[in-house]
Parts: sequence; structure tokens; C-alpha cells
Amino acid sequence: MSKVESAQHGSNITAPTELVETRLEKYAYRRLGLGRATAPPVLFLQHFTGTLDNWDPAVTDPLVGSREIILFENAGVGRSTGTVPDTVSGMAKHVLAFADAMGLTRVDLMGYSLGGMVAQVVALDRPSLVRRMILVATAPEGGEDIMHLEKPELRRILEDPKLTGYGRLVGLFFTGSESSQAAGRAFAARLQARQGDREPISGPQVAGAQIAAFRAWERIEGERFAKLRRMEQPCLVVNGVLDTMIPVRNSYWLGEHLPNAMLLTYPDAGHGCLFQYHESFVRQTNLFLE
Amino acid sequence: MSKVESAQHGSNITAPTELVETRLEKYAYRRLGLGRATAPPVLFLQHFTGTLDNWDPAVTDPLVGSREIILFENAGVGRSTGTVPDTVSGMAKHVLAFADAMGLTRVDLMGYSLGGMVAQVVALDRPSLVRRMILVATAPEGGEDIMHLEKPELRRILEDPKLTGYGRLVGLFFTGSESSQAAGRAFAARLQARQGDREPISGPQVAGAQIAAFRAWERIEGERFAKLRRMEQPCLVVNGVLDTMIPVRNSYWLGEHLPNAMLLTYPDAGHGCLFQYHESFVRQTNLFLE
Repeated sequence: MSKVESAQHGSNITAPTELVETRLEKYAYRRLGLGRATAPPVLFLQHFTGTLDNWDPAVTDPLVGSREIILFENAGVGRSTGTVPDTVSGMAKHVLAFADAMGLTRVDLMGYSLGGMVAQVVALDRPSLVRRMILVATAPEGGEDIMHLEKPELRRILEDPKLTGYGRLVGLFFTGSESSQAAGRAFAARLQARQGDREPISGPQVAGAQIAAFRAWERIEGERFAKLRRMEQPCLVVNGVLDTMIPVRNSYWLGEHLPNAMLLTYPDAGHGCLFQYHESFVRQTNLFLE
Repeated sequence: MSKVESAQHGSNITAPTELVETRLEKYAYRRLGLGRATAPPVLFLQHFTGTLDNWDPAVTDPLVGSREIILFENAGVGRSTGTVPDTVSGMAKHVLAFADAMGLTRVDLMGYSLGGMVAQVVALDRPSLVRRMILVATAPEGGEDIMHLEKPELRRILEDPKLTGYGRLVGLFFTGSESSQAAGRAFAARLQARQGDREPISGPQVAGAQIAAFRAWERIEGERFAKLRRMEQPCLVVNGVLDTMIPVRNSYWLGEHLPNAMLLTYPDAGHGCLFQYHESFVRQTNLFLE
């Protein structure tokens, strides 16, 4: 790889979007740090309606080094073909098809929000694939109050005519405090740093299927949280204590019922805690993965 | 200071116990790392019935370096004179008398269990003294299920004739898993490494007054947890998810109501989580204090 390619692959601002044909769909992905890896790659699984362009370079880029970062776009999102599954386990099947096509046999999973749920199912369906998991702002199956956009505190932001695009994202992901809002604006600016080769923005059909998946994920079948005991991988669970999209008690349950999970919560932070505290989050992730 | 003295002061296994006269009582303390400090000292506040000898050298010693560690023995415990107060705020007064006599104007507080409650009152009573706080396996005022030794799961250990001395401590502080018990035995061995110059073991009068202080600390007066909002210091809150002496939900409340607290919980760990995961705990403490 040339020096230019290598620099390009060092950041989610510049890494090219690639496509891979698999037994299921053709998936869009980006690969950061190509060719420098000694540890397993970290496979990033994205949040509700998010595309590859929603990964904050302040989180992805500093994690590149002794490991590769692979950002994955699930079926029906961005330039990945197919339709968005309406269950988390349907989404996990696409992760496995992608892993197989890419020749990935051992990865660490970075599952954020919806992606954290997909990560849990991947770890159950194919334990040998998953070395460690970072589960950010997410919930166990049978969790509560997961992405109820009809709640007053979320509707207030979603229906605010002054908030559009990134402004709305900042409203949803950050708290009302001055410092959290400032962190939110910096986050939005970082997401806009990528010039061209951007993914199409998710439409209502993506949101609809993903919301259906959240509703199914809330169902309690059999003994609540029993499945968590079977995920023996070391896990790092992270959330902001003021997350209104997936409240922090869901992270408490993960910390209590996963056999080997360290929990970390951040003050004055919501769903976007990893972006607000990106320096600490990267440091903790590096510590955890090493 | 000579090289021998310097080495002696590097560990709680060898540091001499010193005494200081103050406006209230004469307090026993140990000072680790004397003369090497560039950062504020960390003042350690001890758990229920614990003395200076209950500080695990695996936790104290590696924290010595750019900072001093001062282990403090409250009134009526070990060789400190006076009677054990039956309120947390009574104990906090002794911390302030000690700080004044020692000329301490700015410290970090390491408050473990009962010591974490004392730390909170010190931070409220004299905010200027406290730069940062580490609150381990503790509870806010108005917390729940604090040190109810009459609970079946604690009585089972306290009344087990096979468990005495350190064995009982391991039973109370560690979980039933093989790895936690092994960590507990290693902890007990470390506590016994100190040869001579040991503190007298606490008797029932210490326990009785401290239990009375726990009962008073559980009371809810006015708006629950409102005082936490006034503690603006950066805090690191730590607990084991299986703590039976002060359950982890008390740590959740600290993380949610302190304005600037990061919470960290450990899996398969109880009240002695900091000793079980001493390497991680020291790393996290260093990160937090630096």
C-alpha cells in the first residue's frame, strides 16, 4: 500500500467506502488501518438509522494502530443492498455473512446502541468469532424503554422545527448542559469533515424496520436476562447517566448479568456519551482491548 | 530522609505508624511516599471496623509516586484516641482536625465504604480541601441496605464457625466464585505481610458506634440525594456488582446524582472489589487523579 493510501486509511474522514459480495447481500464497509494489524480487528456496529458517516473520527481514528477498525453497514442501510431486518437476530445474520466473506474468524465488537444489541446476538450465535465486546448505550434483550421516540422528551426534540439534521442529532445524543451541547456541536462538525463518498441518509423505511426490531427486543421470553450469562467474553459496557433514548438502567443490567463485564458511566452525558467523552472513551477502549 | 527510610515509606507493609496531636484527638496515621510529592496527597478513609492494617499494600503502594498517600485512622479506632462517633458527620470533624494539624489544605480523598460516606461530608463541610474523590463500595446519604449485618446472606458468613479473622473478611468482601475466593486469599495474605507495629483490632464498641452511624446515614431528610448536587469535585465511583454489604444500587445513585462522577463496576466482585481487581483499580485511580 502506498503512503497516500495508508494515510487515507487512517481516518474515517478519508477512508474509501468499499463493497463486498456475500452469500446474502453486498455490504458497504470502511477499513481503517489496513495492513498494520497485530491484534484482531474491531468491527463497528452502528446505531439506529446511522450510516458509516455517523462514526465520529475522534472515536475511530485514535483506535487504529496495532489493530484494524472495520466499519460495517448492515443490510438496507446506506449502500448495502437488501432490506433492513425487523429483528436484531436478522441483523446479526448479515454480520456473520459479512465476516465470512471478509475471512474474519476472530474480532472484537464495538456495538453502539442498536449495534450493541446486534453484537450480543452475534456473540451468542457464533461465540468463537467474538473475542471481546464493547457495548455502548445499549440494552439487553428484555430491556426497557428502548428508543421510544414517542416519549415527550424525545418528541420535543424530533418535532422542534428549529432542529434539523445534525442539530437534531445533537439534541438527541447530548444533554442540555452548556458543556454537553458544546461537545455536541464539535461532534457534528467532525461528522461533516468527510468530503464526498458519503452514504445516502437513511429514510423512513430504515427507521421503521429498526423500530420494529427495538419493540421485539424489549420482549421478555423465559427467564429475564438469562441469555447474558452465556456471553462469557470480557465486555466493556458504557453509557451516559442521562441517556433518554436507552436509559442507563439497561446498562446496569448488562453489568449485573453478563458474567465478565466492566461498566463505565459518564456524568452529564446521554446517548452520545462516547462522542462527548471521546478522549476518555478511546483511552478506556484501548486499556480494555490490550 | 535516608534511603532506608525512603524504602520504608514506600509500602504499607513497612511504613511506620505515626501519631499527631490535634485540637480534638491524637490520631494514628501512616504516610507513604514522603518527600516525593508534586501532586496533592491522597487521604485514605477506612471501612467499617478497619484499621491502618486493613489497607491492602497492592492498592496503596503502587499509587505512591508523584503523590503521597496518607492513611488516616479515625477517633477511637486503632491507636487513635477518643471515642468512635455515632454519626458520619462526627467522623468528618476528626478528618478536618487531622487535616489542620497536618497542614493539609488540598487533598484527594479515597473513601472506602464507611470512609466514602465520611469523604462526602468532608467535601460538603470544606469543599476547598477536596480536589477529587474516589468513592468505593459506598452509599449516598439516604442510601439503602447499608451494612445490615443481620441479613441472612451476611449472618451466614458472620456466624460460620469455620470462618474466623481474615477468613471471615474474605467471606464478606469476595463472592463465592473460585476466582474471587482465590483473590480473597491473596488479599488476606497481603494484609498479613506487615510484621509488627500493627494496630489493635477493633472491638464491639467500634462496630456498635459505626453501625449506629450507618443507620443514621440511611435516613432520608428533605429531597433525597439533593446534597450530592453540591459536591462538584470530579469523582470516581467504584463498586462490585455483587456487593452484599452496600449493594451496587447505592453506587448507581452516586453516579446519577453527583454532578461530575464517573462510575465503574466490576463483575463477579463484592465489597472488596478494589482488592480483587487491584491492578485495574490502581490503573483507573492513576488515570483519574492525573
